[in-house]
Amino acid sequence: MYKIELSSDDVPKKWYNINSDLPSEIPMPQNSEGKQQIENLSKVFSKGVLEQEFSQERYIAIPKPVREIYQRMGRPSPLFRAKGLEEKLNTPAKIYYKREDLSPTGSHKLNSAIAQAYYAKKDGIERLTTETGAGQWGTALSLACSLMDMDCTIYMVKVSYDQKPFRKVIMEVYDGKVHASPSENTEYGKKVLSENPNHPGSLGIAISEAMEEAIEYDNVYYSLGSVLNHVMMHQTVIGLELKKQFEMIEKEPDVMIACVGGGSNFSGAMFPFMKDKLKGNSDCQFITVEPSSCPTLTKGNYEYDFGDANGFTPMLKMFTLGHDFIAPSVHAGGLRYHGMSPQVSLLSKEGYIEPRSASQEEVFKCGVLFAKSEGVLPAPETTHAIKAAIDEALKCKETGEEKTIMMNFSGHGLLDLKGYENFISGDLLSTGD
Amino acid sequence: MYKIELSSDDVPKKWYNINSDLPSEIPMPQNSEGKQQIENLSKVFSKGVLEQEFSQERYIAIPKPVREIYQRMGRPSPLFRAKGLEEKLNTPAKIYYKREDLSPTGSHKLNSAIAQAYYAKKDGIERLTTETGAGQWGTALSLACSLMDMDCTIYMVKVSYDQKPFRKVIMEVYDGKVHASPSENTEYGKKVLSENPNHPGSLGIAISEAMEEAIEYDNVYYSLGSVLNHVMMHQTVIGLELKKQFEMIEKEPDVMIACVGGGSNFSGAMFPFMKDKLKGNSDCQFITVEPSSCPTLTKGNYEYDFGDANGFTPMLKMFTLGHDFIAPSVHAGGLRYHGMSPQVSLLSKEGYIEPRSASQEEVFKCGVLFAKSEGVLPAPETTHAIKAAIDEALKCKETGEEKTIMMNFSGHGLLDLKGYENFISGDLLSTGD
Repeated sequence: MYKIELSSDDVPKKWYNINSDLPSEIPMPQNSEGKQQIENLSKVFSKGVLEQEFSQERYIAIPKPVREIYQRMGRPSPLFRAKGLEEKLNTPAKIYYKREDLSPTGSHKLNSAIAQAYYAKKDGIERLTTETGAGQWGTALSLACSLMDMDCTIYMVKVSYDQKPFRKVIMEVYDGKVHASPSENTEYGKKVLSENPNHPGSLGIAISEAMEEAIEYDNVYYSLGSVLNHVMMHQTVIGLELKKQFEMIEKEPDVMIACVGGGSNFSGAMFPFMKDKLKGNSDCQFITVEPSSCPTLTKGNYEYDFGDANGFTPMLKMFTLGHDFIAPSVHAGGLRYHGMSPQVSLLSKEGYIEPRSASQEEVFKCGVLFAKSEGVLPAPETTHAIKAAIDEALKCKETGEEKTIMMNFSGHGLLDLKGYENFISGDLLSTGD
Repeated sequence: MYKIELSSDDVPKKWYNINSDLPSEIPMPQNSEGKQQIENLSKVFSKGVLEQEFSQERYIAIPKPVREIYQRMGRPSPLFRAKGLEEKLNTPAKIYYKREDLSPTGSHKLNSAIAQAYYAKKDGIERLTTETGAGQWGTALSLACSLMDMDCTIYMVKVSYDQKPFRKVIMEVYDGKVHASPSENTEYGKKVLSENPNHPGSLGIAISEAMEEAIEYDNVYYSLGSVLNHVMMHQTVIGLELKKQFEMIEKEPDVMIACVGGGSNFSGAMFPFMKDKLKGNSDCQFITVEPSSCPTLTKGNYEYDFGDANGFTPMLKMFTLGHDFIAPSVHAGGLRYHGMSPQVSLLSKEGYIEPRSASQEEVFKCGVLFAKSEGVLPAPETTHAIKAAIDEALKCKETGEEKTIMMNFSGHGLLDLKGYENFISGDLLSTGD
């Protein structure tokens, strides 16, 4: 069986909230004086997601309209067996990949975008602002807002805006309004540009710009595509579907792999399986892969830091490279973030996750190998997961182990062909590594 | 139910060959003196596909390795209900669309590419040459050759090559070798360029270039992505799956719609249903939609003509605008062909098909409406089908009829964002209409 399919009816009815099962409680957000700070979050986030952010309930019901849009947008996503890749590697391992790229916006991001737009709409909000790196999140939120009949403003990290000219177009098809960040549209953007008119931008700066607008206007909320607990939870539809899919083929993954920027595709796919590990019922190995040029989990510090560049956000206890860190302009724009989900950070700190990093050159090589053997062109972010899956499969070739390897195929690379063009022509290193 | 799924096991085991059920026999290919000409086709086509081209067998077995690659590449494709679009149109009609865009190369083209590469490989051939307009066919054949460990050379119509810069990159990821056509690579290309160095190219010219190479080299075959009978037949996996999918929901389509360039996505989706109509067992209405700037079925003549610009091919009896016709540079590059499948032509001539045409401006408008309500961004070609589906649904709104409308969603538009950019900025007409 090459494709393990579920029916529309199998879309989960509840999200899984890992807060209830963590080895220790997630440290609360703080202000810069070290005091707990959650009050002013209600200025920029919906009641719905804020309640979820700090909830200790193990399962939270997915509202019917959200579940219905999940179905309309094609969920559940299929699980594929990477038979072509296995053959090319000549490995006894069985490699599976969950096809989040089949979402209409091409990545897992829509899973949280729909939920966030829904809860904002419920509060009577008319517009959402957000940041986007690679453009996957901005595209997803644009579509979600379009489906909910709301407006959407996106601050897109300038280097990605330039690298991916057509990302802007697709967001505009969905009626999203896109600004290259830093922009002249906000006070903070102006300040950054006055210091460096050629600033390449960063997710931290783009978040500051998007939040500034949400703080300023009453009918506007801010929406974040990763990092926060509620975003991780919305993504668990992936892992909950995966559970059923592995039951169908009567297997259990020995190794689970995902790339990490803020942690959302990893969390979504893994947390329902991590639950078993936290309860002592599983030996599954969980691997994260990040760019060696933005090594948050592998080389960052576990400490309180701001989520954005300007300090608009509360401080979160997480692995961080410092909120003023500007990652090199690698093509995996979605992985160029200085911080990391507090939940993923805690699990990594406690040893439940094995964090790895890889260079741009080596992950693109794996991406091309994957495309040629499986057909699907991976997003630059996703190639990081492929790298680790290939490494694990090659280890099995040495040991003869028939491990079941699952990687989350977080998105396709059809709007990232500039990166592949650079890789093919040998110009990749000049764009940062 | 928003998504009607089949399992891997449901991939058809046989293709449907409409030759056996046509109201009259398909006129044979001729040379320019009016004599039957099929002998020299064996220089450029595999034994397998040539046998299929003239076969009268109703069903032809799909070779096991081909069926397995269909499965690995994600077949069967799901059928979706366009609930969001229905709501936006406020129509009592039920609109369904078959998701051929979910193929790794983004369109239905892989269905024939895999089969053609397989039969060529079986003959010991090392390389395939082909032409491509929008790039969908070239991409599909590149991947198919990569999967079969063969080389692939693609002549891409120059105007599309320039409009879609990243199409070349994805073909190169699959190891395809891409030339803008007319090129300096062939005698015919050189001749065209010497007369007009800025020639925009045409599918007819690109076919001539690709065939020239196949005629010249012994280890090379030529491969065509549409028009010929065997290509139509390979595509019937779409319609055979659709039959099962409509059985599952206990419905029968009242109207079936597809865009047409050479006729392959239309034929693939419709022929298994057309069979019932030819036998008098169905009232289903079959609608083709082509660009008003390349109105082959709506305004062409039904006569013998060459398939390419230079007259390398035999002459086929078909609707044609003349083999020297150069269509305006509309974004729907896959629909800019002067001719039409002889099978589709015959059925249209005999009144089994209702041919329509639409302008570039109006189809892009429908494409954007579709993207905003269903999420998926259609290829410019596919927007033609959407236009007719919307027209039919709006008629139902007037009459109150609850018709079941099926359209073949032939491909996504993620590599055609230049067209959407022009549409959004109001610059579409300057690129031809």
